[in-house]
Amino acid sequence: MKKIVALLTDFGWDDNYVGIIKGVILNINSNLQVVDICHSINPQNIIQGALRLKSAYSYFPKKTVFLCVVDPGVGSKREAVILKTKDYFFVAPDNGLLSLVVDEHSPKEIYTITNRRYFIEPLSCTFHGRDILAPVAAHIASGVPLHRFGKRKEALKKIALPKVIVDHKKQCLQGQIIDIDRFGNCITNLTEKDLAVIKRKVSLKFKGYTVSRIASSYAEAEEDQPLVIVGSRGYLEISVNNGSAAKKFNLRIGTPIKVLPKDSLNLLDKRDI
Amino acid sequence: MKKIVALLTDFGWDDNYVGIIKGVILNINSNLQVVDICHSINPQNIIQGALRLKSAYSYFPKKTVFLCVVDPGVGSKREAVILKTKDYFFVAPDNGLLSLVVDEHSPKEIYTITNRRYFIEPLSCTFHGRDILAPVAAHIASGVPLHRFGKRKEALKKIALPKVIVDHKKQCLQGQIIDIDRFGNCITNLTEKDLAVIKRKVSLKFKGYTVSRIASSYAEAEEDQPLVIVGSRGYLEISVNNGSAAKKFNLRIGTPIKVLPKDSLNLLDKRDI
Amino acid sequence: MKKIVALLTDFGWDDNYVGIIKGVILNINSNLQVVDICHSINPQNIIQGALRLKSAYSYFPKKTVFLCVVDPGVGSKREAVILKTKDYFFVAPDNGLLSLVVDEHSPKEIYTITNRRYFIEPLSCTFHGRDILAPVAAHIASGVPLHRFGKRKEALKKIALPKVIVDHKKQCLQGQIIDIDRFGNCITNLTEKDLAVIKRKVSLKFKGYTVSRIASSYAEAEEDQPLVIVGSRGYLEISVNNGSAAKKFNLRIGTPIKVLPKDSLNLLDKRDI
Repeated sequence: MKKIVALLTDFGWDDNYVGIIKGVILNINSNLQVVDICHSINPQNIIQGALRLKSAYSYFPKKTVFLCVVDPGVGSKREAVILKTKDYFFVAPDNGLLSLVVDEHSPKEIYTITNRRYFIEPLSCTFHGRDILAPVAAHIASGVPLHRFGKRKEALKKIALPKVIVDHKKQCLQGQIIDIDRFGNCITNLTEKDLAVIKRKVSLKFKGYTVSRIASSYAEAEEDQPLVIVGSRGYLEISVNNGSAAKKFNLRIGTPIKVLPKDSLNLLDKRDI
Repeated sequence: MKKIVALLTDFGWDDNYVGIIKGVILNINSNLQVVDICHSINPQNIIQGALRLKSAYSYFPKKTVFLCVVDPGVGSKREAVILKTKDYFFVAPDNGLLSLVVDEHSPKEIYTITNRRYFIEPLSCTFHGRDILAPVAAHIASGVPLHRFGKRKEALKKIALPKVIVDHKKQCLQGQIIDIDRFGNCITNLTEKDLAVIKRKVSLKFKGYTVSRIASSYAEAEEDQPLVIVGSRGYLEISVNNGSAAKKFNLRIGTPIKVLPKDSLNLLDKRDI
Repeated sequence: MKKIVALLTDFGWDDNYVGIIKGVILNINSNLQVVDICHSINPQNIIQGALRLKSAYSYFPKKTVFLCVVDPGVGSKREAVILKTKDYFFVAPDNGLLSLVVDEHSPKEIYTITNRRYFIEPLSCTFHGRDILAPVAAHIASGVPLHRFGKRKEALKKIALPKVIVDHKKQCLQGQIIDIDRFGNCITNLTEKDLAVIKRKVSLKFKGYTVSRIASSYAEAEEDQPLVIVGSRGYLEISVNNGSAAKKFNLRIGTPIKVLPKDSLNLLDKRDI
């Protein structure tokens, strides 16, 4: 069985940083399989990195080593760490990037990375992905025991994610858009479980627009018409059939989304669609 | 010999969809080699997907499994299918994406994909690339016989491609631009064979401009000057030496292209270049 | 040990050219590992290609075959060549793309590529990356001896790179920006060694701005404030902590950079930051 190192970074596709990281990994063990998960995390956006890692990692084979680099603090005092869960290994700066993994699977072991024997020297100030994290990931995938890289550590830094606010009295929820994909689908932080709070049929409201169609395929809406659908990550998404919801409604990451019982809609709202 | 799964999708490079698909494939068989053909098909553009698949697939090793996902009808009643040709396997939604493959190689076998045993559950509404097509492609590449995935089927859905119109009397052809690449080369749907209809030397006319130089290298035109060349896909392409034809002449996919005998050009046309 | 073919091209990620090249390579030997270094070299920009190759190749395993395609002269009389250095093989058009490799490692052997037995026929006019360079790279990685591909050759074409100008009298240096990355870091052609000429502390001056902070991590500057740092390629880079220096100061490839002793700064310069 081939050992896999999977990469998630904010390095983008235009520079040669990802290519260099692959060179470093294969130079340590050319039998490893290096796989790209995503390199287009918005620069230094740890929350987006954590979300995209969460929606991807569990599809990979057990024992996969995830090399995660969204690292605004590179070269400063922030630590680099290894997280071992039941099924996987993660190598990352300790800045919250692994928060959502830890939410789902309590850590089996955590190590700081301090053993310079595994680093590429001379160490750069700006590219620890190349000089520290990539070689460590390659060595883990090649079977080096974790205690060789540094000392045990109790917990990882956590970051706060946008939370869903529940108003039980008014039976309404307040969420927001947390990601937007290439098709203009707007991923919210609302799940079906959240909706269960409101026992009646619901509508989503944003920027003065209201969408009441909760669909089970894009084709249920007319061409260029909006719908809400449970997306592939389990979150509610605002979409437009054969079009871009982000463009049509000018939505962005952070745009607030309100969920209301369908019958509570303001009857005077003329922009209902 | 390593088994290959080659990917052609409209998922783009910015999201983690392609990465997730690779995780699914390698989770089924980590010895497979996953190769990217193209992920930048314009969203839901089946014709462009069919064209780019056509110009690429025959360069791959025999037995390659092509996983093709341009799927505006995901979650609706459209079927997912397996096509077996003499040399290759294709897994795709049945929406015309494989039209040009079937034009070149008549199907040996076609199957619908219905056996949920090979699906990832719970099935999402929006990402059958991950939940159905990717696992099926991985299982085919791993040797699972095709009849296990569903029932035989006689024919695939076809889509109509922009055709070349021939005016034998006036000895002229009417084609169009069907793709534009990174360099601004504008690929037409005209081939050398089409030109043979006109026995004399020809000119290409578009948007009031005329290009008469049919070149055999970009360097035959002066810097920043236009030429027509038989491109790597066998189609005539409008190019600019060390520049972008698309930008210089403001050309787009769909722009009409006229081919005329060279001596028939309107002598009053002052924009000849 | 797995044999690697590493790709550096100006083909971009949007077309299927890179995918086709991978098909060609794997069709010759499906056990090769194909790795992307960079495909976003600005179209036909040989200097940028040479720089990005230089900063990446030495991280790869020995015996890696580098397939380098930035090829404005494709189809014209320019030669295609194989360069063998102590550790690596390079396959490229002979247009200066390998200049910086040769600066670091004198060639062991150079061959022209002329043996059509290894080409894909019919040869296209526009895509020798697919028809000549990719198959030759795959055959080299598979062990075919270099003399089979063509004749020995003495030297490669060189291109001139932007040089640092030293004014010993005024103790100042004149360099320029040679690359800009996704984060807006502006890579100059100045190294620490260049700075040693000036014995005192220095400032960098560009477009009327002056940056005096030579930092060892981004975090040493305040949020959104500029700094100069020795980047991962060994060159001085102008950066902004958690921001884009390119955007903030409107810098481009080619923008001149002046290095002055810190105490020589014009005291009247009010834009010092």
